[in-house]
Amino acid sequence: VSPDPKPIIPVILSGGAGTRLWPMSMPDRPKQFLPLVSDQSMFAETLARVGDARRFGPAIVVANVGHRPHVEGSLDQLARIILEPCARNTAPAIALAAMGLAGDGAMLVMPSDHVIADVAAFHDAIARAAPLVAAGWLVTFGIAASAPETGYGYIQMGETLAEGVNRVARFVEKPDAERASQMIASGDHVWNGGIFMFRADAFLAALEIHAPDILAASQAAFDKAVIEGAYLLPDAGAFAQSPPISIDYAVMEKADKVAVVPVDMGWSDVGSWDALYGLAAHDADSNAITGPVRLSASSGNLVRSNGIRISAHGIDNLIIIADGDEVMIVPRGQSQAVKDFAGGK
Amino acid sequence: VSPDPKPIIPVILSGGAGTRLWPMSMPDRPKQFLPLVSDQSMFAETLARVGDARRFGPAIVVANVGHRPHVEGSLDQLARIILEPCARNTAPAIALAAMGLAGDGAMLVMPSDHVIADVAAFHDAIARAAPLVAAGWLVTFGIAASAPETGYGYIQMGETLAEGVNRVARFVEKPDAERASQMIASGDHVWNGGIFMFRADAFLAALEIHAPDILAASQAAFDKAVIEGAYLLPDAGAFAQSPPISIDYAVMEKADKVAVVPVDMGWSDVGSWDALYGLAAHDADSNAITGPVRLSASSGNLVRSNGIRISAHGIDNLIIIADGDEVMIVPRGQSQAVKDFAGGK
Repeated sequence: VSPDPKPIIPVILSGGAGTRLWPMSMPDRPKQFLPLVSDQSMFAETLARVGDARRFGPAIVVANVGHRPHVEGSLDQLARIILEPCARNTAPAIALAAMGLAGDGAMLVMPSDHVIADVAAFHDAIARAAPLVAAGWLVTFGIAASAPETGYGYIQMGETLAEGVNRVARFVEKPDAERASQMIASGDHVWNGGIFMFRADAFLAALEIHAPDILAASQAAFDKAVIEGAYLLPDAGAFAQSPPISIDYAVMEKADKVAVVPVDMGWSDVGSWDALYGLAAHDADSNAITGPVRLSASSGNLVRSNGIRISAHGIDNLIIIADGDEVMIVPRGQSQAVKDFAGGK
Repeated sequence: VSPDPKPIIPVILSGGAGTRLWPMSMPDRPKQFLPLVSDQSMFAETLARVGDARRFGPAIVVANVGHRPHVEGSLDQLARIILEPCARNTAPAIALAAMGLAGDGAMLVMPSDHVIADVAAFHDAIARAAPLVAAGWLVTFGIAASAPETGYGYIQMGETLAEGVNRVARFVEKPDAERASQMIASGDHVWNGGIFMFRADAFLAALEIHAPDILAASQAAFDKAVIEGAYLLPDAGAFAQSPPISIDYAVMEKADKVAVVPVDMGWSDVGSWDALYGLAAHDADSNAITGPVRLSASSGNLVRSNGIRISAHGIDNLIIIADGDEVMIVPRGQSQAVKDFAGGK
């Protein structure tokens, strides 16, 4: 891979505030800032993944204003931190980032809470995307689909534009199980992983055509923004005027020159404790243990604690998560149940 | 039941410091002082069981010196608290209590950490025992054996001495499963529940014959004891000289006039979390829950917490105990495993 003369600007979207990894993940402490998969947070690993200065410029982060303390520690690796005054989904967030960049600079937009095990494969995919990006295409990265998941959007790959790059035939919403299986069987569908690459001017031009209200609100918020060192605080009143719409709906599904680069890179969105069990290191009894945990005669468990000591005997295939003074227990395969607990009561 | 002209003196043995109900029960906070079965401690319930002034005099407690704070709150219901400087098993403990009583006063000796659901049946058994006690017999109460338990000693009932009172044919150590089944099938065996009744002078006389070293050490400890209000603190050096032997070994298995009063009174020694599950109130899904616990789609669980919030979904037949910053999890039927955890590491 030869370095691009003009470095790619990573844009890291850190707006997520989900509770699918409750009790550890909470709105004020979302999963991208927790050391869940390794001893580093996924936010830090996302930054490290685009830390090679021969390929990438300093990153821009778009984060919720409430998460400023979590971003603070990474300040020296960042060109700018855009603090959203409220959540408006991805299209307005990316628009704010694009407005701060030089017109034809390439942006690599990615979530902050995903795992990519094979960084070299990711970099190869970026290199394949680069010529089309330079030519004004909007590129999405299509994750090699390993199972008929119903929790992801899919992308059908159309004609080949270059080696390892296809035109997008269509975007498919989260399917039911039957459609998901059909798409996996077809062989020409990939998962929509929410990673994009395009020139800032190409994205803003597409936004002007397909979602001018988002562009107008974001531009007003940007123009009236307050700058505090590396922080940019968009005008709250103006930004709130933007419809809360994803980049997929607002632009990618409507624009003409949209390409997909399929890539198999050990991707996971770490969307559940079950997913985390799959990513974690296991001992000889297939237990994945973190923190003060004692297990005997037990197998296949995910047990994590950041304080409470957990002692268990004779248990199999359970997920046990202790955080502060909360303990959550579900069988593996049922970790979606945490959403009912996270809401409180 | 007509009240005895001379009240029976309850002697409550509170020396136990087991960890079979770890993490709640610990050496410095043994199970008799915890509200495990009801909202009262078993110590308080044991006292209440012998609180009828027409039948019983004020009780004597023999407790470990370290448990003085736990006894303090019951002071106004007690005649005397004997604080053992060290654990020497039951024979020396009962000897200390006997020395403080009038010579032919009847003592009812009982552990502080057992449950008796049918107090009327207990009182009836005491009434049956009284005439033999007055005649100098050493009486033990035989618990109706409901299952071939290997964790208890057994008593074989011999000839009938009076209605509902038998001579003891023999004491049997904790048996293996096969012998336990044979004894249950025989119909003439009961469990040794560690409850005794005899005249103080009869017990001390038997001790002099069968275990004079225990009598001598206990007498020296008693004679040199320090009195602090209701508290009696035996001399530590003298008491330590006593061999640590149970009343069963020291006296009951050797003496001549030993009787057993069989009684079916809903007895339990609450010897495990499994036993506690059996005693607890259950909801419609057979869960027994105490404290800040949320369960959904779960059945047959014992879940207790005194602080940590426990949220579980889709779990069945587990024992989950949270105390302070400890959580213990075992399947029901395996609660003997806690002993391995209680030891620390």
